[in-house]
This record gives sequence, C-alpha cells and structure tokens, in this order.
Amino acid sequence: MRQILVVFFLFSINVSSAADPLPSWNAGPAKDAIINYVKCATNDGCPLYVPPRERIAVFDNDGTLWSEQPAYFQLLFALDRVKALAPQHPEWKTEQPFKAALENDLKTVAASGKAGLLKIMAVTHSGMTTDEFTDTVREWIKTARHPEKQVPYTKLVYQPMLEVLNYLRANGFKTYIVSGGGVDFLRVWAEDVYGIPPEQVIGSSIKVKLEERDGKPVLVRLAEIDFIDDKEGKPVGIHRFIGRAPVMAFGRVEKSHFLGIWRAWVVVILRRDHQASSKKQKAFTSRFRF
Amino acid sequence: MRQILVVFFLFSINVSSAADPLPSWNAGPAKDAIINYVKCATNDGCPLYVPPRERIAVFDNDGTLWSEQPAYFQLLFALDRVKALAPQHPEWKTEQPFKAALENDLKTVAASGKAGLLKIMAVTHSGMTTDEFTDTVREWIKTARHPEKQVPYTKLVYQPMLEVLNYLRANGFKTYIVSGGGVDFLRVWAEDVYGIPPEQVIGSSIKVKLEERDGKPVLVRLAEIDFIDDKEGKPVGIHRFIGRAPVMAFGRVEKSHFLGIWRAWVVVILRRDHQASSKKQKAFTSRFRF
Repeated sequence: MRQILVVFFLFSINVSSAADPLPSWNAGPAKDAIINYVKCATNDGCPLYVPPRERIAVFDNDGTLWSEQPAYFQLLFALDRVKALAPQHPEWKTEQPFKAALENDLKTVAASGKAGLLKIMAVTHSGMTTDEFTDTVREWIKTARHPEKQVPYTKLVYQPMLEVLNYLRANGFKTYIVSGGGVDFLRVWAEDVYGIPPEQVIGSSIKVKLEERDGKPVLVRLAEIDFIDDKEGKPVGIHRFIGRAPVMAFGRVEKSHFLGIWRAWVVVILRRDHQASSKKQKAFTSRFRF
Repeated sequence: MRQILVVFFLFSINVSSAADPLPSWNAGPAKDAIINYVKCATNDGCPLYVPPRERIAVFDNDGTLWSEQPAYFQLLFALDRVKALAPQHPEWKTEQPFKAALENDLKTVAASGKAGLLKIMAVTHSGMTTDEFTDTVREWIKTARHPEKQVPYTKLVYQPMLEVLNYLRANGFKTYIVSGGGVDFLRVWAEDVYGIPPEQVIGSSIKVKLEERDGKPVLVRLAEIDFIDDKEGKPVGIHRFIGRAPVMAFGRVEKSHFLGIWRAWVVVILRRDHQASSKKQKAFTSRFRF
C-alpha cells in the first residue's frame, strides 16, 4: 500500500514550469519523477525523506554525462597518445594495432580485440608517474578536438545532465561518477566540467606503486589492471568507494548492472546516445524500487 | 626565503586561549602550528591559503584516533567472533590459533603469526554478505567491552583528536581516515564516533563479489585480500580514493609512510599510545614540508 501511495505521489504532482530546475528536459514522467523525488527527499515530513548524509546520487559517464561516439573518448585519447609517442617507436609503422592507430583506422583497432586494446593502454597509460599522467590528460583535454565535431571533448557533455547534477547538489546530494572508464583519466577534468571532485569519481584503475625516482618518492603507474568498474564491478566499486547505498542512479540500459542491488529510489535510465550531436538527451524511462 | 617566512609565521603567532578550539591539547609548537596553519589556510590573503576544495586532512586511526592497546581493536573483534562462532566449530577446542583465541591467550594468537591471523580473519571476516558483516560489527561495537577498561571501545577515542576533527571541519576541511584497519569494519561506526562518513574512510579491504542469494543480488565477502592500506600502501590508498594530495596529515612515527610523497603542509606526528587510559594524548612533534 505504501508503495502505491509513493508511486502516486511521484507522478501526481505537476511540475510547475515557473522555476524549472531542468529546463532542457522534455516534459514527461522521468522529469516529473526526478523533481518530485527530490522535493520529497529533502522534506522531512515526506515518506521518502532522506537525511542529508545519505543523499548519494551516482552517474554513469560515457553515454550518460558525455558522448561516446564514434568511440569512447578515452580510447581516442589513447590513439592521440600513440601518435604523439610514435617518433620514439618506428616499429609501430608496421606493428598492429599501432599501425592502425597511426592511420586513424578505428575499425582495425577495434578488430584487434582486448589484446590489441591492452597493448595500446599499456604504452599510453602506464610507465609514467601519476603526476605525469595527470599532466598529459590535462594538456589533451585542453587541446584535443573531436574527430568529427572539431570541438573540445568537454563541449560534448549533455546539458540536461549538467542541470541534474546542479539541481541535486543544490538539494544537498553528493554526486558521484561511477564509470567503466579510467578513474585517473576522469579525475583530471571532472571537477571543472561536471563540478564533481576527484574523491567522488569512481572508475576502473591500474595498479600504482610507490617508487623513488630522481631521489623523490613518486607513484608509478603499472601495466597491470587493478579494478574494472564495469558491469558486475559497479556495485563492487560503489561498495568499495562509497560504502553506502546510492538513492538515485543515472545510466543507460546496457549499463544498469549496478542498479539491482540497492534500494535506489529513483533510477533514471537514459537512451543510448547514437549521435554526439544530440542536443537534447531524452530521458527514456524511470524505474522505482521499494 | 619563502620557507623561512612561512615557518616564522606558523610559530610566531601566540595562540590566544580565549577561544581555544583545542582545549585538550598541551600548549606547544604542535598545537600552535595546527591553529596557525588553519588560520592561514582559510584566509585568502595568506601565503598558505588553500581553496576549500583542496582542504583534505588525513588521519591514521589505530593509536591516533583511538587506542590500540592491548591489541588492535579489530583483532579483539575477531577474537570475540571466534567465541561467538565456536559452538558451530567443536574442532576449534584443539586447533590453533582458535584454541588460544577461545582461551583469551593473546600471546599464543600473536605467536601464530600471519598465517594464524589470516585463519582467524577468514572465518570472522568473510563468507557473509556485506550487509551481514555490517550488522555484526554494529552489534559488537554497541555491546562489546574492552577487556581491561570494561567500557565500550568507542569510549577509548582520543578527545584531543576529536577536537582536531571538529576544528578542521568547522574550517571547511574534509577529514579522512587512512587506516591499515579494515575499511568495512571502520565504516560502520566512524560516522557516529568521529563524524567521518563511510565515503571518507580509506582502509584495507578484502575482495567482494556480486552473487545471488535467496534470489536477491548481494555482495559477498571473499577470503581474499584486495588491498592493504598500510606502509607503502597508504599513498596508494590516498591516490586511489581521494585522487588529490592531502594538506594535513596526522599519524604516529611508525605510521608515517604516507607522509613523504605529497606537499602536506602540516604533518603532526603523535606519540605512540602506550596506555589506553591516557586521557591527554600528547602531540609529540610537527613537521613542515615545503
């Protein structure tokens, strides 16, 4: 009975457009559910009230907060790095998948499979210190351009989702990224672009090790996977990093593995982004769990 | 030259006792350094100003925030669990290190070495779901009593450090635990006792796995070490969980491995606590890095 009342509550209130916190969202049940839920979660007389410290919202990144077309942007970063490093590796001119990477042949790179991708990740993501990697990503995110759109990758974030992030934070929610992408790649720019600080970014990682270089202690990135924050890894990552169940979760259908385990009240599943150009990301559906 | 000026600054200002934020601290250079640093870090005209988002302070737990005598409290938890589980394990009456655990023979338990401790950890810390483990720790922390002091373990926290935690948070710092202890053990009670939420607790962990039990997805704790957040693991843990350098660090001499790598401005190294009864933890020294 309580469940029915709650569902009734979430859908029955018309969201006034006077002070619309999500102006880029299409009117519909997903938008209403988000706004009605937030209003209830922040009102301690409401059945779904959530104490401030439990207001945790998690967001997938690729295809949810920014585009992933024509490929994961972190892969495009890796291919740019292969090009930048190529002068020191003449053998790459004939060695796959590096040859394909240098020729912008995404198809052949993809066809090289997991083994090929791991080769590319090893030379572009490991061997350097954590600070050196951060500097490289920072420079790339500032200067690189999307191969088709010819704009910085950070321009290919979804305005409707930026509105959700701001709206939730204004209501006392901690917003987290929970991405299959590399945590050390995301953390470099997530704060400036999404307002999400490094400590609220969860992602896949490689191992790092404390070493001494030039007489100074540094952390060095190893060519060894530490944690894959994808599929069944997502609830593991949330448990490991947050240690508390999120109450809201945003992601796409294919990436909803982390949604089954906790009592997330509002789960918004977004349409797959087929085009990086889509200005308005359409909220597809929302699910309620009790 | 700047370094000298900064050191001069930190030591030259007498801390007024009128509104003492650290009343349990002995007067001295460590107390002055903490207060002067915080005043400067929060004043954007000051040379050591720190923007709010970079105000990260990390704290060791055992021997820093609470006592570790006569043994790590988490080990005492494990021994209590062995006793609770013993009726289902009649073989423990003769099998070491369980026999010693059942007889309160800490010496023999310790003499069983790493292999013995791992046996105890395996039966007391794995096999159950994460929720079941949380419930067990919550019940223990509420009901267990310290073997000598006969008080709840949470009464054996250090008042001077509670004052530091509150003082820093009142000045916009995020306070983190960075402990060699188990993260899932600490997170159960750290928020109530220290005001540190689960997502700001970093510690050692075992692997967890998404499984279905009774038709429900759950996370199950495996008898397999995931990460040891101790010694050279501490900077790795800070990198992994925070992704940003702390500006203050509190720990004991033996546990200062995480202090060398970042530009922590004020590093307070505390005396080893020889007695759980010590009411006033004495700040031993402070270090400045530039």
